[in-house]
Amino acid sequence: MKFTIVGSGRYLPERVILSTEIDQRFGLKAGETQRRTGIAKRHFYDEGTSKLAKKAIIIALKDAQMSYQELDLLICASGTFEQPIPCTASLIAEHFLEEKHPIPCFDVNATCLSFISACEVAQAFIASGNYKNILVVSAEAGDDALDPNEFESSALIGNASAAFIFSTEEQPKAKYDVELLGAKFMTYPEYAHSAEIKAGGSADFIPENMQDRYFHMDGFELIKAMRRKLPEFLSSLLSDAKIGIEEIDFLVPHQASGPGMKIAARLAKFSKEQMVDIIEETGNTIAASIPFTFDYLLKQEENFQEKVVLLLGTGAGMSIGGQLLRINRR
Amino acid sequence: MKFTIVGSGRYLPERVILSTEIDQRFGLKAGETQRRTGIAKRHFYDEGTSKLAKKAIIIALKDAQMSYQELDLLICASGTFEQPIPCTASLIAEHFLEEKHPIPCFDVNATCLSFISACEVAQAFIASGNYKNILVVSAEAGDDALDPNEFESSALIGNASAAFIFSTEEQPKAKYDVELLGAKFMTYPEYAHSAEIKAGGSADFIPENMQDRYFHMDGFELIKAMRRKLPEFLSSLLSDAKIGIEEIDFLVPHQASGPGMKIAARLAKFSKEQMVDIIEETGNTIAASIPFTFDYLLKQEENFQEKVVLLLGTGAGMSIGGQLLRINRR
Repeated sequence: MKFTIVGSGRYLPERVILSTEIDQRFGLKAGETQRRTGIAKRHFYDEGTSKLAKKAIIIALKDAQMSYQELDLLICASGTFEQPIPCTASLIAEHFLEEKHPIPCFDVNATCLSFISACEVAQAFIASGNYKNILVVSAEAGDDALDPNEFESSALIGNASAAFIFSTEEQPKAKYDVELLGAKFMTYPEYAHSAEIKAGGSADFIPENMQDRYFHMDGFELIKAMRRKLPEFLSSLLSDAKIGIEEIDFLVPHQASGPGMKIAARLAKFSKEQMVDIIEETGNTIAASIPFTFDYLLKQEENFQEKVVLLLGTGAGMSIGGQLLRINRR
Repeated sequence: MKFTIVGSGRYLPERVILSTEIDQRFGLKAGETQRRTGIAKRHFYDEGTSKLAKKAIIIALKDAQMSYQELDLLICASGTFEQPIPCTASLIAEHFLEEKHPIPCFDVNATCLSFISACEVAQAFIASGNYKNILVVSAEAGDDALDPNEFESSALIGNASAAFIFSTEEQPKAKYDVELLGAKFMTYPEYAHSAEIKAGGSADFIPENMQDRYFHMDGFELIKAMRRKLPEFLSSLLSDAKIGIEEIDFLVPHQASGPGMKIAARLAKFSKEQMVDIIEETGNTIAASIPFTFDYLLKQEENFQEKVVLLLGTGAGMSIGGQLLRINRR
């Protein structure tokens, strides 16, 4: 399957929380939070998901030298939402009302892997001819769901946004030709509750215990799940694509946590040189993490010729998703 | 584009609220709520979205004479969710753990039109060869987001679930061959706040005013929006498909409200005979409404040969979505 990347953009909001502030909050010695998580700072945004998404979209449109009027689909691929109703994609489109260009809007949600699922959808739409210029945006805003008394999520999660514009091979503005060498997505629901926000939906709309409105993850359980599932997942993805691990130029992983990424790299036998690791500067930005890191890579590499890139991550559900791309700068 | 329907199912939960109870609550004379809304009763389910989804899935699998192990993708297409994290599709898959058959799971959300968006995704996946046997399920559970003091949503919204299994033409178990004659989806974000739940997401996580956790719709504004947008939307869908309105055998509309459906039928010049209207028995079941009504139609019509069916609805966002299908029973 072939498609193109016309442009992309990423945005990191201004408000910063340093890991040294987390040290102080939890009575740890300076540097301990960074030592445990690999994270120096996280950024936060308080004006809602849709405005944060808009920031990345404007950068991506400029990068693509494309106007909003040229888009024909907007998919929001975030793990969290701005309002329970309507979908966040509609609220994002509201910020582009002055463009007088209505387009179809919907959300795709696979928590931290939403961007990977939305890429699958966008690629299928391009292959089937349903849509041509597809904007996929992931944005995560706010810190209200982070329990200030729980070290793990308090120290890991941050905000960011990133947007990609995908199109057909015929798009003259395309920057990169992309060949999808392989794609795999799998959900292992025995770990469905290892990372969750229990309350706020139909299961428990207004909980008695406020704790249930907070994000909770069982890091130990998730790492156990990754050990059990990741090696087989990856070898099946690579063998379907007939690609050896050494042929992968860049691994763009979900920046989940410093230790998690190290274990994943070891399990999958990735070298330090293959791994794009920017978690120190961003923390875990949920669904924004993979497109943010992917955009970072595209902007870093001057000469992107025939590079093989693997987007890979785990997300609540628990799901593992991977996209193996051969990318060629036009 | 061609695909098949292998099977489908719908489920209406047991707990009933009669419109005469709403008459009493709002001090109206008996029959007034039904006169205003077209609804005699709604059904409610208190055990969460995923269990309600499971009910419809089991019926659809039986209808398809298919086992869960034959599925290769599960899309949850609901307008509301069970938990903020993970996606509802994962929580649904958790109920099928004993099948020992992990499949990819994600959610598609376009509020009341989620099923239409998910159909577009499923059709593109089938056309592009990504997936073969795709389960799309819509389920809406709970009444916590309905303001008991607001007549409109209190009188309209109900719970239900419905599931469809779509596949390729090669699937020997397929019951219906389907040709997609046309599809259109459009979002008009100037009406993004005409139907919404303001609080509970990143915009306002824990609101000061509990009212903001309730669903609110401006029925007058939505009907105005429909008058402005629906006729042009529909004529563009029909002319792209080269189909006249009189060639449509059945309109399967989103069962939004009695008056809304009447206005839509008049605007679009549909006859009473074309319209599948079951709102009296179900109320507005959000995203479950279209697949529930579609399944009802398929089970009603004994001899489904070369019928042209239009799935059509409006949803929060505000979006209009339509799928024009030529359906032939094998």
